[in-house]
Amino acid sequence: MRTEAEYKALVENALEPQLRSLGRVPEKLMEAMLYSLLAGGKRLRPVLLLAACEMAGGTPEEALPFACALEMVHTYSLIHDDLPGMDNDDLRRGRPTSHKVFGEGLAILAGDGLLNAALELALKAALRMGDIRGIRAAELLARHAGVTGMIAGQTVDVTMEGSTPTEELVSYIHTHKTSDLLQAPMEMGLTLAGADPAPVELGRLYGEHLGIAFQIVDDLLDVTGDPALLGKRTGMDEQKLTWVALKGMDGARKDAEAHVDAALEAMKDLPWDTSFFENLARASLKRVY
Amino acid sequence: MRTEAEYKALVENALEPQLRSLGRVPEKLMEAMLYSLLAGGKRLRPVLLLAACEMAGGTPEEALPFACALEMVHTYSLIHDDLPGMDNDDLRRGRPTSHKVFGEGLAILAGDGLLNAALELALKAALRMGDIRGIRAAELLARHAGVTGMIAGQTVDVTMEGSTPTEELVSYIHTHKTSDLLQAPMEMGLTLAGADPAPVELGRLYGEHLGIAFQIVDDLLDVTGDPALLGKRTGMDEQKLTWVALKGMDGARKDAEAHVDAALEAMKDLPWDTSFFENLARASLKRVY
Repeated sequence: MRTEAEYKALVENALEPQLRSLGRVPEKLMEAMLYSLLAGGKRLRPVLLLAACEMAGGTPEEALPFACALEMVHTYSLIHDDLPGMDNDDLRRGRPTSHKVFGEGLAILAGDGLLNAALELALKAALRMGDIRGIRAAELLARHAGVTGMIAGQTVDVTMEGSTPTEELVSYIHTHKTSDLLQAPMEMGLTLAGADPAPVELGRLYGEHLGIAFQIVDDLLDVTGDPALLGKRTGMDEQKLTWVALKGMDGARKDAEAHVDAALEAMKDLPWDTSFFENLARASLKRVY
Repeated sequence: MRTEAEYKALVENALEPQLRSLGRVPEKLMEAMLYSLLAGGKRLRPVLLLAACEMAGGTPEEALPFACALEMVHTYSLIHDDLPGMDNDDLRRGRPTSHKVFGEGLAILAGDGLLNAALELALKAALRMGDIRGIRAAELLARHAGVTGMIAGQTVDVTMEGSTPTEELVSYIHTHKTSDLLQAPMEMGLTLAGADPAPVELGRLYGEHLGIAFQIVDDLLDVTGDPALLGKRTGMDEQKLTWVALKGMDGARKDAEAHVDAALEAMKDLPWDTSFFENLARASLKRVY
């Protein structure tokens, strides 16, 4: 197993070459896609994928196109989320959002382009691998990103604004909007390593609980966080269905802890050294203390 | 070989079940996706795919998920094209556009959802088939729809508005914005039938020329067409780089004919009964006479 920083470096160095490997792309489109894709961030999703793959005996280098594809899906969702017709955000990771820099039309196309590029890269990698693992990983990506996954969560988030928050509704949004893209890397990484269905399911469960914990922590930071440190405006979620609106600050903190515990529990029965994932889950709470 | 109407009926009956086969989708999202997906139209792209597959000895029923996926990609591109940040159209196929009915946020998500669903369906079908043909067909779809294909054409169309039209620029837009999604069904259908690379390339060439001819005919109809018959406003493309702006009405008509001839030429060396495709190419000109 490598360190989080090493996996992150692998991803950072591969994102642009992977996107350019698709062929000749109009300059403005490439510029807009790279502006958002190379804006930094923790690269949590691709790091999880590479680490899960290596933990189970696979090769991170073989999993790299899938890791980059996952980060592209995450990035496209941020570009489209920030659009005036959605959250209408001006700032993301401390920089103007895509539509502020490139205009709405190109921001829409850059998002479409990154989603399409992600699945194209996964398919090309699957063709090169020549066995079932690659198609399975590509299908997992499409499923978690799709209309029963992340897009489902975004839809409920957008269409339910102003509704009375219920635990069921907020939980649905968190599970799909954030947690699906954290289940995906665990399942994809383990599948690419050739793991059996049972450990793949435990990996998925870890990702699900980690994702919900992360989203609750994000909701807490939206209330307590420093805009300068977060690189975005805070207090923006007042109209939104958040865990804090539902459970209050203390209730939200407690629930985040419970989900981290459940994530740790899922790792227990895996036959590999799971310390990387345990440390990562524990660290996710530190942001709010 | 079946008739165009029979292939079309196969597609019409499969679109909604295919989309619903993905699992539980939020009601509003499903409603918005189906509103655009079931708005009618010639279903030209999926019909070409099924016909190409059957011509080369394949099974249209096996190709059906890929045909529906292609129509979903086409539909998503129309939804996003119509958005205020893009062409800002109020009417499509005689009905209010998606964002007029559902609002911008949901229209963006419905487009994202259809693109994602398309590739998810293709991947699930590839997994079921269990051989290389399905992955190849899915990769062809992603490539032609993507940042070196359709999205490239849309980008140049959006970013070059108001520029002086050159033949190179207009040709690039037509080739990618329209023609890529007509190359895709020929290559996908023949690939799914297990055809060799040489006939697949001839099929692609047919689709390329048919697509350019179609786009030129569309440009002509935007000048001469009856809005009531077309189901959309005409004269909208004045700011756009069109073949008519470049070559005049007569020049555009002549070029459309030349591309139909080239499409017919590509069919000549195929070892199958190509009359379906020849008739279709010839009929494409009738709309402007």
